[in-house]
Amino acid sequence: MEEIVSLCKRRGFVFQSSEIYGGINGFWDFGPLGVELRNNVKRFWWQTMVDLRDDVVGVDTSIIAHPQTWEASGHLSSFSDPMVDCKECKKRFRADQLPEGTTDKCPECGGELTEPRAFNLMFKTFVGAKEDSSSEAYLRPETCQSIFTQFKNVVTTSRQKVPFGIAQIGKSFRNEITPRNFIFRSREFEQMEMEFFIKPEKAIQNEWYEYWHKERLNWYKRLGIRSEHLHMRDHEEDELAHYASACVDVEYDFPFGRSELEGIANRGNYDLSQHIEHSKKDLSYFNQADNEKFVPAVIETSAGCDRTLLAVICDAYQKDEVGGEERIVMRFAPHIAPVKIGILPLSKKLAEPAKKLENDLRKRFKTDYDDAGSIGKRYRRQDEIGTPLCLTYDFDSETDNQVTIRHRDTTKQERVAIDQVKNYIQDVLDASQDS
Amino acid sequence: MEEIVSLCKRRGFVFQSSEIYGGINGFWDFGPLGVELRNNVKRFWWQTMVDLRDDVVGVDTSIIAHPQTWEASGHLSSFSDPMVDCKECKKRFRADQLPEGTTDKCPECGGELTEPRAFNLMFKTFVGAKEDSSSEAYLRPETCQSIFTQFKNVVTTSRQKVPFGIAQIGKSFRNEITPRNFIFRSREFEQMEMEFFIKPEKAIQNEWYEYWHKERLNWYKRLGIRSEHLHMRDHEEDELAHYASACVDVEYDFPFGRSELEGIANRGNYDLSQHIEHSKKDLSYFNQADNEKFVPAVIETSAGCDRTLLAVICDAYQKDEVGGEERIVMRFAPHIAPVKIGILPLSKKLAEPAKKLENDLRKRFKTDYDDAGSIGKRYRRQDEIGTPLCLTYDFDSETDNQVTIRHRDTTKQERVAIDQVKNYIQDVLDASQDS
Repeated sequence: MEEIVSLCKRRGFVFQSSEIYGGINGFWDFGPLGVELRNNVKRFWWQTMVDLRDDVVGVDTSIIAHPQTWEASGHLSSFSDPMVDCKECKKRFRADQLPEGTTDKCPECGGELTEPRAFNLMFKTFVGAKEDSSSEAYLRPETCQSIFTQFKNVVTTSRQKVPFGIAQIGKSFRNEITPRNFIFRSREFEQMEMEFFIKPEKAIQNEWYEYWHKERLNWYKRLGIRSEHLHMRDHEEDELAHYASACVDVEYDFPFGRSELEGIANRGNYDLSQHIEHSKKDLSYFNQADNEKFVPAVIETSAGCDRTLLAVICDAYQKDEVGGEERIVMRFAPHIAPVKIGILPLSKKLAEPAKKLENDLRKRFKTDYDDAGSIGKRYRRQDEIGTPLCLTYDFDSETDNQVTIRHRDTTKQERVAIDQVKNYIQDVLDASQDS
Repeated sequence: MEEIVSLCKRRGFVFQSSEIYGGINGFWDFGPLGVELRNNVKRFWWQTMVDLRDDVVGVDTSIIAHPQTWEASGHLSSFSDPMVDCKECKKRFRADQLPEGTTDKCPECGGELTEPRAFNLMFKTFVGAKEDSSSEAYLRPETCQSIFTQFKNVVTTSRQKVPFGIAQIGKSFRNEITPRNFIFRSREFEQMEMEFFIKPEKAIQNEWYEYWHKERLNWYKRLGIRSEHLHMRDHEEDELAHYASACVDVEYDFPFGRSELEGIANRGNYDLSQHIEHSKKDLSYFNQADNEKFVPAVIETSAGCDRTLLAVICDAYQKDEVGGEERIVMRFAPHIAPVKIGILPLSKKLAEPAKKLENDLRKRFKTDYDDAGSIGKRYRRQDEIGTPLCLTYDFDSETDNQVTIRHRDTTKQERVAIDQVKNYIQDVLDASQDS
């Protein structure tokens, strides 16, 4: 894990937020390569979940919502962790994460601990000019609640009929007592959530629950994560949230242990019912075909974007040997790699035609031009940032109109006609996405 | 303007946030079409500013940063508006926005007003388990400051050399006393900012300032906004922020008046110098070629994403007459339209081949399948959401392998071979982006 954190910093994937001021615990910034990789993960999710489907539409709702949202959802009263303080050293701990047998003594200094108290994980702020309870608002702890509160507006404006889904990618905030494991558990994070609205009948709910379970697992495989590192874990009865009748986690084998990437849950119609009760608005659905009215049940797929990014990075990180020398290589699936093709002129004298070719390619593919150092050194640099293909423009290219394309994973090289390069790259990207 | 707000709601572009709870002033949600249009605007900005350039890289930094960031930037001490309260009706106003001649009487009830007080526009929250000054943090009021604080990390990891830029798209928050004009001035909004780092020499600063001035104006034109509605307004000497030596606004003729979309400013090296002073870290740049060290100056391009979206919507909105009937048509530039092509089978019997064609096209273009109502009615629906092309699959298509493509703006129709449809659409999109 340390090696991965170090590479992320060294190559500009992830920086500590506000590093020059000593950092701020639980917040991270994404550097030039991190933002590209992360955007590619988000785009692939949106493409799979929205663009390529008839039955899912997207929304993008505000981070600060009306506070009654959180009263209805139950977050105001019960979205909390149990917390204890040490009366001696004043350190704070999550009561449920204390080492066994240390429930009344501080694990750091041995001092006496307070009784556990509920600590609400929502960040509070004040909207408007006053700082009192009338202006209290919260940063959303999950993106899905505004999907529920906007359900009726989406039904009315989108011509969608149940069964259909509403998807959203956006930031959420949780004031975690102990953020940890790099970008896995942070206080500000991005979610990719989809709520799929269906008829509230047991058999239909089970059917769609199974359907999304398979779809979502498949998505992680197409993202390039190896199957053997992915696991589905059904929640036990006593582990289920009070609103869910079934939940399964997609887990990944991180270096720090097997942990959750996504939860797929049958939430029934708990959320819509709560918002109906609190808003006194009719959020039921009228099914014209069968002349019936109901409050839809919901299958939710809730993925952590930053966790997924971390899994992608961990899974891609490898060391192998090329020509007797060790290399670090990020084996990203080509379709999500931050840079698709490195453009490496064999000599600085070839800058003009090489740049011309780059300008043609970059309209469709993210390129990286590099003319510094030996070709071997430049390959290593591209390997370390996970560029699937490198193109070498050499003196022969001037006459035979061909370039050498070198593959990251196999290091195999191939001579390709310049007017076929676009198709060649596109084929490699498409193949990686379909596999 | 009312007509535009109404269309935005009716067609699912923009909803009031938390509408079922009576809304929350200054916050907006984007519906299924709004999110697509907005994403297209953001992608076009990113493509122009990052992907197609050698000299700009992106980042994505956290909304909550270390509070010292705002001490260094000056936001903690001076990012405020003057505010007055009515002693009678308790309403609150911005002192600088009171109608002329009403500086001491309430414009609503005539009651006495308080003296103006400074009201800081940053949203405050608390990070960690305590709610006291030691844990105070702020939602960023602009995205650029963390570009400055991460400047050194980006230089170290990206192989960029001055002159180069760092770009970011992300949310910012300002606790506006009087949010207004729909999504133009809201409390939660998205910015598209780029800081371009250059040698701190007057002539070089002027040169790049002029360069970005032209580049950015050109971008709005390529976005499809009519030139005659765009204006560049130089700030007067006494209007300039204390850190800026020159600033020009890109303004648009909104229905509520001419207002700012973007500011292009010569910020000198004020920001980096402030962060050097407050962090005691060396953020200077070493230019190896000339063996010199300096703190770069900065040309900033700071655009409001939601304002740009509103300008795009206002500029696209038109009423004209087709076949003697009035129609509402959103003339979005095809390359940013939320839906690129409507798929309209002439009869429900043709669903299978029409769906098959859609599935082929949607891998590259956003499609919308519509088989409800007459063709004329379906064209009107697509016109109102700004779909540039509609494809009609009819009974002849089965035998001649052609479809009819109809253009939104001219309503002209053309017969196109099915295997040429992809290229046909792509050409229309490319042409709109280059114009």
